Amino acid sequence: MSSQPEHPTLLIPGPIEFDDDVLQSMSHYSESHVGPGFVATFGDTISMLRKLFQTTDPSAQPFVISGSGTLGWDIVAANLVEAGEDVLVLSTGYFGDGFADCFEAYGAKVTKLTPDAVGGRPQLPQIEEALKAKKYKMVTVTHVDTSTGVLSELKNLSELVKRVSPETLLVVDGVCSVACEEIQFDAWKLDGVVTASQKAIGCPAGLSISMFSGKAIEAYKARKTPPATYFASFKNWMPIMQNYEAKKPSYFATPSPQLIHALHTALTQILAKPLSERFSTHREASDRIKKAVADLGLKQVASKPEDQAHGMTAIYLPESVKATDLLPKLAKAGVVWAGGIHKEIAPKYVRFGHMGVSVTDPARKDIEKALNALSNGLTECGYKA
Amino acid sequence: MSSQPEHPTLLIPGPIEFDDDVLQSMSHYSESHVGPGFVATFGDTISMLRKLFQTTDPSAQPFVISGSGTLGWDIVAANLVEAGEDVLVLSTGYFGDGFADCFEAYGAKVTKLTPDAVGGRPQLPQIEEALKAKKYKMVTVTHVDTSTGVLSELKNLSELVKRVSPETLLVVDGVCSVACEEIQFDAWKLDGVVTASQKAIGCPAGLSISMFSGKAIEAYKARKTPPATYFASFKNWMPIMQNYEAKKPSYFATPSPQLIHALHTALTQILAKPLSERFSTHREASDRIKKAVADLGLKQVASKPEDQAHGMTAIYLPESVKATDLLPKLAKAGVVWAGGIHKEIAPKYVRFGHMGVSVTDPARKDIEKALNALSNGLTECGYKA
Repeated sequence: MSSQPEHPTLLIPGPIEFDDDVLQSMSHYSESHVGPGFVATFGDTISMLRKLFQTTDPSAQPFVISGSGTLGWDIVAANLVEAGEDVLVLSTGYFGDGFADCFEAYGAKVTKLTPDAVGGRPQLPQIEEALKAKKYKMVTVTHVDTSTGVLSELKNLSELVKRVSPETLLVVDGVCSVACEEIQFDAWKLDGVVTASQKAIGCPAGLSISMFSGKAIEAYKARKTPPATYFASFKNWMPIMQNYEAKKPSYFATPSPQLIHALHTALTQILAKPLSERFSTHREASDRIKKAVADLGLKQVASKPEDQAHGMTAIYLPESVKATDLLPKLAKAGVVWAGGIHKEIAPKYVRFGHMGVSVTDPARKDIEKALNALSNGLTECGYKA
Repeated sequence: MSSQPEHPTLLIPGPIEFDDDVLQSMSHYSESHVGPGFVATFGDTISMLRKLFQTTDPSAQPFVISGSGTLGWDIVAANLVEAGEDVLVLSTGYFGDGFADCFEAYGAKVTKLTPDAVGGRPQLPQIEEALKAKKYKMVTVTHVDTSTGVLSELKNLSELVKRVSPETLLVVDGVCSVACEEIQFDAWKLDGVVTASQKAIGCPAGLSISMFSGKAIEAYKARKTPPATYFASFKNWMPIMQNYEAKKPSYFATPSPQLIHALHTALTQILAKPLSERFSTHREASDRIKKAVADLGLKQVASKPEDQAHGMTAIYLPESVKATDLLPKLAKAGVVWAGGIHKEIAPKYVRFGHMGVSVTDPARKDIEKALNALSNGLTECGYKA
């Protein structure tokens, strides 16, 4: 039995439903951010991130900083790219476009590759052509774009970048993928993955979480100009992260002990089982959901099966059904879904998040509840499959 | 009776001890950041900040953004000052120096005024001279520098700035003063106050909280160059704050519903009584503490009584007593104090935070416990008053 009061089941692509123990960790009594108890908790949390990202390379550097997931973009744009340098942004939706905007705020020159149509993704030959046309400091890719549910492939992309432009850094926006999609930081030679606490990691919002390779750190150190940021600065945070992980107190800006406790609890739960099992649990739930959606005669925004995320599903509505009619019917059934946010198709689709305890805790019936609510809601809207 | 487990009493200058209801709000079940329940909570929270800052000017704009208090410096430096513009930083310690470093990261030209000696503050004639020598875009002052416990005076400072250089913006770092020291945003014609959740406001760390005047917003709009930031950008956050306050869902980056709930609870508690009462309660506790410290024959880092903060006390140790000997004795007595962090005097002093429930909740005996622990600890260290 959950210790949480009865409430609508939150099945948007983040924030997600939280485990009781994670939520209870948010109420941890107050501790000094430089006291031995909290230093040990934060240090262990940082070390656990190495396991979550599947890296054993000691030159890789994790960061956990108070902020929204979006702060991760600033960390990348401010520290790893200098004004005037070229960045190739692979965009599969709203969040790829946002990452591009962030780079431009810091003075980078952005080339954006977009798919032929919403729901697709830039293809390798197109990316290869771009990489051969110009020297890019960095390529970025949104692993799962929360606006479209499009999953981007990382392994072959990385091989392409290393083959055609080996100096170019490859950075992944993993906000909607870390802890539900496979990410092998070392094996896939990634240079950066940025994410947030409130999606598949299953910790309340408020933490920017990231991992950077030794190569990325070297690129930072080789900058000709200092980064135009203070709060998002590698220089200010790197020694702090290293000290905490070595269990030494250290201060730049006050972390949030309560959020770090919750992240510690969430990571401890995640790492108690093999990651491969976690990923396949998410895949199986996703397959079941995608089949149910197809059985209802509905299409997904992500057009090809291999481009479909496993922690969320973006679903086109039948032409006769409005999101503003359907979502309140789901809410009445106790299920909260999200509307569309991709500007070209926003009113035409809805988003269903299926990450974390809603799929990993067998005692919960969140997915079944949501699929029933969808089916009934569509019927109430006059739609017949 | 507190619902928190027994734990050492945290009396550092932030984070502070938290009220039970505030901590329980941190465990709030998961909600959509754009759902009507959370939108109402966040909107009310933003409105309550206007009362906390004592502003009724509708052109003043509050911001609540996930991040450490330090993020407030970036918000000021990135949005309100352009590269190459002059800023006058009044420094009374580590945090004034940090604010200056932050401006420099964004390319501002910083003139820093420091006191004649650690524990003092720049004086009005010195500030007037500086303001007459050069046109400054902004003057900043650390209301209470957490490294020294020095309180800066704001009302006369503001009158001076308006008289000598009326176009210059006056921005206050209120991280260690908001909710324990009087701040009259409108009456004192302040253009910005930045603070954090975990000090006198009494909410766990993780939120940057700020208020800017209509004049500051106009100065932002009159920029010749776009701000070099994305996550700390007025442009991105201003419509979001305005929409939430109008109870309309809006999205730029995911806020932390749990932290916002806790802030809502903390502000509701603070505003349930007249602010004047809250400030005098902090003053009275501070007077008692300062007297006890003097009775023990100890001096404060803040040399003059009128320059001493009311939410913390920075205390010079007797020459025979080391902080590394005394602090563990306090810890044994269940009291956590902080060591020194001002680089010129760090090993010579300790810091005692007395903000929030530790002074406002009459059922707690935190202050007496701390003063007893200090007295006993000094005796154990061989010191006689």
